[in-house]
Amino acid sequence: MVAAMESFHVSTRRRTDFVDITRQVEAAVSELGLREGVVTVFIPHTTAGITINEHADPDVMADVEAVLERLVPWRGDYAHAEGNAAAHVKASLLGSSARVLVSDGQLRLGTWQGIFLCEFDGPRTRTVWVSA
Amino acid sequence: MVAAMESFHVSTRRRTDFVDITRQVEAAVSELGLREGVVTVFIPHTTAGITINEHADPDVMADVEAVLERLVPWRGDYAHAEGNAAAHVKASLLGSSARVLVSDGQLRLGTWQGIFLCEFDGPRTRTVWVSA
Amino acid sequence: MVAAMESFHVSTRRRTDFVDITRQVEAAVSELGLREGVVTVFIPHTTAGITINEHADPDVMADVEAVLERLVPWRGDYAHAEGNAAAHVKASLLGSSARVLVSDGQLRLGTWQGIFLCEFDGPRTRTVWVSA
Repeated sequence: MVAAMESFHVSTRRRTDFVDITRQVEAAVSELGLREGVVTVFIPHTTAGITINEHADPDVMADVEAVLERLVPWRGDYAHAEGNAAAHVKASLLGSSARVLVSDGQLRLGTWQGIFLCEFDGPRTRTVWVSA
Repeated sequence: MVAAMESFHVSTRRRTDFVDITRQVEAAVSELGLREGVVTVFIPHTTAGITINEHADPDVMADVEAVLERLVPWRGDYAHAEGNAAAHVKASLLGSSARVLVSDGQLRLGTWQGIFLCEFDGPRTRTVWVSA
Repeated sequence: MVAAMESFHVSTRRRTDFVDITRQVEAAVSELGLREGVVTVFIPHTTAGITINEHADPDVMADVEAVLERLVPWRGDYAHAEGNAAAHVKASLLGSSARVLVSDGQLRLGTWQGIFLCEFDGPRTRTVWVSA
């Protein structure tokens, strides 16, 4: 039987921070008992996102951070009064979830792919949900 | 038994319009009869998208609108001759679907999260599909 | 019985190239034996993405290409030393997967929608995975 949902927490360290959560998602898939199919990795926050990208060279996510900051600067003429409008916009650009295939009980990813929690308004403790 | 698909219609009011469809998706999940799992919220249009973001303060989506208009202006040097090229580009940036977890027959979202239909070439009547 | 996963290969022809893979995904769904539900179309690469957009007029994807190149130029002040940092950033902006509904064994898409493999660092041979 496949459990309904697993969750885990991630502590981020900076305002913008990309944390490789591939191993935590693998552990969640194991707990779920899913052998074949697709899992959804979902973040229940509105100033953070989920993306899949290269996890071998941290410079890749540093470039993602720099481009997003250039396109959606932290300081700007925003309507939202809490001061973190840019984080909300970045969250919608990267999205609140990723889908990953599962084969023989294991995550099936490309050679260079890792799953990243994208913090845009940290540091904070974030929650990630994984469900089949 | 879980039904194959539910759908509903949304009338948008402006060229760019973000409509909170969380309640309609909840009703669709109830009609589907899904108790546990993940639903896909999909928009069968190419000048509109789906995103999940804060629904407490409408200024958040106003900022998303303003940033997208700055990055992809309505008027520009586009190839597509119908005049709505920017809407197509924005649709690819935000995406055509969102996944939402369902637990005990209810949508499971973060405290501040709502599901938004993103109109980029309105006003129009749009269709949304929900499937497990 | 539904098979676990189908895959196919796509040869891209230019550095940036959007290839309509709707028919290959349809064939994969047929091979999977899925009659009703949702399939995930996933690309196991970090310099390519998947999007759904208009496939009637190729100018639409030409505009997506031009806007992405303007927002994330190929040449720039990037940290990643392999010279393809822009491709990684574009991959995260468009995403590594799409979800498509399946009804009566067929893909259920809007009238103008096609599924595109988005090459950002070609030409290469790419792999696409399809799973229920």
